[in-house]
Amino acid sequence: MEREHYDFFGSLMPYLDTRRYIQFLPVSGNLLPPPVPAITPVVELEVETVRALFKLEYLQPSGSFKDRGTFVTVAKLMEEGINEVVLDSSGNAALSMALYSLPAGIRVHIFVPSRAMPGKLSLIQRLGAVVHFTEGDRMEAHRRAVEFAEREGLTYVSHWLNPYFLEGTKLVAFEVYEQVEVPDYVLTPTGSGTLLLGLWKGFKELVKMGEIERLPVLVAVQASGYESLCERSSSKNRLADGIAIPEPPRLEEMKTALKETNGLCVSVTESETMEAWEWLKDIGFLVEPTSAVVLSALWKLVETGEIPDGSKVLLPLTGSGLKLTEGI
Amino acid sequence: MEREHYDFFGSLMPYLDTRRYIQFLPVSGNLLPPPVPAITPVVELEVETVRALFKLEYLQPSGSFKDRGTFVTVAKLMEEGINEVVLDSSGNAALSMALYSLPAGIRVHIFVPSRAMPGKLSLIQRLGAVVHFTEGDRMEAHRRAVEFAEREGLTYVSHWLNPYFLEGTKLVAFEVYEQVEVPDYVLTPTGSGTLLLGLWKGFKELVKMGEIERLPVLVAVQASGYESLCERSSSKNRLADGIAIPEPPRLEEMKTALKETNGLCVSVTESETMEAWEWLKDIGFLVEPTSAVVLSALWKLVETGEIPDGSKVLLPLTGSGLKLTEGI
Repeated sequence: MEREHYDFFGSLMPYLDTRRYIQFLPVSGNLLPPPVPAITPVVELEVETVRALFKLEYLQPSGSFKDRGTFVTVAKLMEEGINEVVLDSSGNAALSMALYSLPAGIRVHIFVPSRAMPGKLSLIQRLGAVVHFTEGDRMEAHRRAVEFAEREGLTYVSHWLNPYFLEGTKLVAFEVYEQVEVPDYVLTPTGSGTLLLGLWKGFKELVKMGEIERLPVLVAVQASGYESLCERSSSKNRLADGIAIPEPPRLEEMKTALKETNGLCVSVTESETMEAWEWLKDIGFLVEPTSAVVLSALWKLVETGEIPDGSKVLLPLTGSGLKLTEGI
Repeated sequence: MEREHYDFFGSLMPYLDTRRYIQFLPVSGNLLPPPVPAITPVVELEVETVRALFKLEYLQPSGSFKDRGTFVTVAKLMEEGINEVVLDSSGNAALSMALYSLPAGIRVHIFVPSRAMPGKLSLIQRLGAVVHFTEGDRMEAHRRAVEFAEREGLTYVSHWLNPYFLEGTKLVAFEVYEQVEVPDYVLTPTGSGTLLLGLWKGFKELVKMGEIERLPVLVAVQASGYESLCERSSSKNRLADGIAIPEPPRLEEMKTALKETNGLCVSVTESETMEAWEWLKDIGFLVEPTSAVVLSALWKLVETGEIPDGSKVLLPLTGSGLKLTEGI
């Protein structure tokens, strides 16, 4: 890869939040939505025989890493003067977009499967978004949203396709680099792939700037029964609902990301997700079940020897457990 | 005040989280609970005629600023080898202590008024804390907790009295100083006073280090009907339940803090709280109602001219609205 020798540290802004990296974003920075995402802590713990680096991505304004991408997307919509958008979501992306659009004066249409979490939906509606319930699964909500956007002539902004979203999620890689340098492995919950692809983009930009020598190995962690990269299982992991996306539009890009980094895919069952969720809770990380799949995957890869002893393994914890007041 | 000319910036650790300020805490740093609090963003917005600096203190592992104090308290308990504690709380402090105690192997007894929020209680119980429901109000829960601790010979760790708690909340002042220098005014929700007193301590330490010249004016914002510093109103603000503490044990210290900083007290009603909560939500800050009282107070003080045009006013937003899935 060609190197640019850009001065990464010299370009950081004096903020102790996402605005620290504003120079690396395709927005002017003059119009930013008020709920600025935080720089999230990285906590190193010994897990089995490796150095697990838990990044607390759930400490964001709407309770998930989605705010990274939404922040950049909404900043861009504000610059473009767009005031009505459409997206589909199982919950977190919708909550994030509803929150950031409100101060920006953007009307949001959200297509959700009718069995989405009522707690999240109640918050989304309180934030003034127009919720369109759809029969069928997550993929059907996607089709309906695209159809509606085309028919009404509105901008479709789902993180599944929107390039600005990845500009936000790439900042997770920049922060990690500043906090703990480059990890050997990165394990990420992977449905539509917006975190996987954002991390890939971020680490590639760091290589291009001459900051790091090599990309970490990317591991896509998927929910059993909904795999797109791993072989499709028959039993369904309904607990990891945030990644229950069997036909993600960016599948080819994800395959390239895994290939380029010598990466791999790991599938996690419902009971494995629950076990990892309990472990995370007991260690003080109150996340939602989807976030726990990365720990299940780590346990498997250490056991099979695919991740060698002493490796630095990044595990972004993507969504907050504070919304789980109804139980899981 | 005597100056020490301590090198504040020179003493910062390279972390981009609370551990950045570990040198200023009365713990060794060798034993820290895993959910490390984040450095929270400060977002400046023009509100009426002043520069309002909103600090997103609700972006913490258990969803409130209480994690600041709990982090230091639990680190100290770990160092001392204490494994069973008692506290009383209306919700947030209990959730925070339950979360941080779990990985530390500390058994927590929590005394709560029986009308505490069921959502928070369900989380607290899932985190393994022993919940003792008490008849009566918040003060009665306090009395029962102290009684129980004495009878059972257990450590009482409520943030109402515990000095380590303030060591954690003082870090809000340190962060603010690094982020936006010293504000002219600091408005804080004030029940037991742990944030007010922590901020006072933090800014005083910065004066002592020779970093800042003067303390900001501290404004204690209280819930009507539960005032301890302002004159007691007859109508009760039940929405700001986090500060419904009519007889705080540290009242004299709080009076001194206000006196030393030429500070004052402002009382906020339920409808004023609701109006400010809506405003904050519409600007993208999804907080709990208690957190909104500082904005009501700001509106009042700008209107009366007590806060002059162009002032830099810090408003810590203390608790997350993500737990409000049941409605408010």
